[in-house]
Amino acid sequence: MAGARRGVDVGVDIGGGKTALVVMEPSGSRIHRVQWPTRSGEGPEAIIEDLVEGLGRSLESVGRNALRVGIGICGQVARGSGVVRFAPNLVGWRDVPLQRRIGDALGVPVAVANDLKMIALGEWEHGGGRGADDVVVIFVGTGIGAAVISDGRLLLGHGGYAGEIGHTTVVVDGRLCSCGNHGCVEAYAAGWAIAERAREAVAAGAGGRLVELSGSIDRITAKTVAEAWRDGDELARRVVEDTGRYLAAAVGNVVNSFNPRRIVIGGGVVQGIPELVYAVRHHVASHGLDACLEQLEIVPAELGSYGGAVGAVTLARQLYPDADTVREGSL
Amino acid sequence: MAGARRGVDVGVDIGGGKTALVVMEPSGSRIHRVQWPTRSGEGPEAIIEDLVEGLGRSLESVGRNALRVGIGICGQVARGSGVVRFAPNLVGWRDVPLQRRIGDALGVPVAVANDLKMIALGEWEHGGGRGADDVVVIFVGTGIGAAVISDGRLLLGHGGYAGEIGHTTVVVDGRLCSCGNHGCVEAYAAGWAIAERAREAVAAGAGGRLVELSGSIDRITAKTVAEAWRDGDELARRVVEDTGRYLAAAVGNVVNSFNPRRIVIGGGVVQGIPELVYAVRHHVASHGLDACLEQLEIVPAELGSYGGAVGAVTLARQLYPDADTVREGSL
Repeated sequence: MAGARRGVDVGVDIGGGKTALVVMEPSGSRIHRVQWPTRSGEGPEAIIEDLVEGLGRSLESVGRNALRVGIGICGQVARGSGVVRFAPNLVGWRDVPLQRRIGDALGVPVAVANDLKMIALGEWEHGGGRGADDVVVIFVGTGIGAAVISDGRLLLGHGGYAGEIGHTTVVVDGRLCSCGNHGCVEAYAAGWAIAERAREAVAAGAGGRLVELSGSIDRITAKTVAEAWRDGDELARRVVEDTGRYLAAAVGNVVNSFNPRRIVIGGGVVQGIPELVYAVRHHVASHGLDACLEQLEIVPAELGSYGGAVGAVTLARQLYPDADTVREGSL
Repeated sequence: MAGARRGVDVGVDIGGGKTALVVMEPSGSRIHRVQWPTRSGEGPEAIIEDLVEGLGRSLESVGRNALRVGIGICGQVARGSGVVRFAPNLVGWRDVPLQRRIGDALGVPVAVANDLKMIALGEWEHGGGRGADDVVVIFVGTGIGAAVISDGRLLLGHGGYAGEIGHTTVVVDGRLCSCGNHGCVEAYAAGWAIAERAREAVAAGAGGRLVELSGSIDRITAKTVAEAWRDGDELARRVVEDTGRYLAAAVGNVVNSFNPRRIVIGGGVVQGIPELVYAVRHHVASHGLDACLEQLEIVPAELGSYGGAVGAVTLARQLYPDADTVREGSL
């Protein structure tokens, strides 16, 4: 049986901009990692081609066989089948059977899930969620994504789509969201929404440094807002303050709905404006019920750009616990 | 071992108005049921006294021993210990160790949880949630309570307080709620809030039949609104329509957060205005993501006033599966 220990697990995170891959020992130590740009505009075949090639090359470079592969992707993934139903930031991804395609190509068990679910598993095992059994991970970037660990298990829901906290309503009849609904927290606190709200304030004559920094109203982004906020700009401060308040309302809903021990907050917008974590901590007290707030901790995400790939290994191990012995030498 | 089959399970539901008790065979058939008024204003000892007496008398009347007791109560219950932390509608209930008290009195394993969690388990095993693994049960009455079955298990959260959907924010900076927060769905769609909104509309000169039916503005209740609505009153129609819209926003948040297969809606307000279920079905389409809506069913609750007591037996059986053999003759 000693030979059966020679395999490794591979985790992949396919994002709109880049794809990250890690190779891990069964012991949990990372022995290899690599990133490449995602060919997001060229359809599923280009991305699958790059993925199969990247997997092969990585395994070759470490001289090991794959036991299991976990893949996180920025889209909605059907539970069980690992079919990618829709990925808004990857052109042409509709009902792509990614799990089967990679499984057929490599001959090993493959687990596919939404990228946020993988990030949540990574933060839970190795990052800000360590040691807690009830953890909600919320990432605020271009959009707002989330995933829930409940009683030590990833919450999937009937079809596998649970955790869409970004598209929960915090203002009935509120701002129009990218999903077509009105009043989702994403329509207030996601990167695109922060930029939109800042542009509207400038257009209404609010003044401040935003136009100076960006060149024109149209070029104001969430990054400009973060920059102006760091410079002490009053309008940017107001936009950030409101972002924190809306985000806290959604986080308060998470607190009362899931009663988590820990909420892990990360993503590009939070990296740009780390004080959002403190703002959420402050405002959530007015939304959460006392019993639910009692032992709650709100902490920043700890894992960097390989967090999703690391979590993908966690899921693959959970789903295929016996693969270390039965699948030896399958690649 | 045949003797070990003679025991029965007892389920109790302690509500603000009445306490309901059922005795069930291990086979699941109900052999006895009884209700008595809850002495809600007289403190924990009076209620515990009635409970111990009611349990003893019921077991005597069926001539059987108790294997397990499950108790649902209209309050927040700490996970594991079964301590009732707080029960807004029962005077003097703060940190009452109900599980230990009844366990000591009867010498059998006792499971205590929030009443909505018991109702959810009852609807899941015997009612509107039958056959689905992901079910959310929402009861709209004086308040709004809910509980979640996820992947075939009751969602508890870290402390046991998960499922407080009534206190999720649907309007940031909205109406004042009984919990002190602003904009909870309970502040729009619970019985007291429907009455409050109707009174405000009448005070603002909206007219209609509400005052005629109730006698004065102060006496308008959710029941008056339901009655006027059945009579075709225009103001009542508007109040009901808005209630459905706010409720649908909260239900939409549940859809996107938990991705349930089925949502079961019940409670006094829904019994009075059954069309609220249809209104929620209609409006939820504009809040839920397509993937989460795909296989969703929204159905009315099926169990009557013994639903919580029946569900309490379900929980006791889940928590103490071996009690039929080991606890024979303990009472």
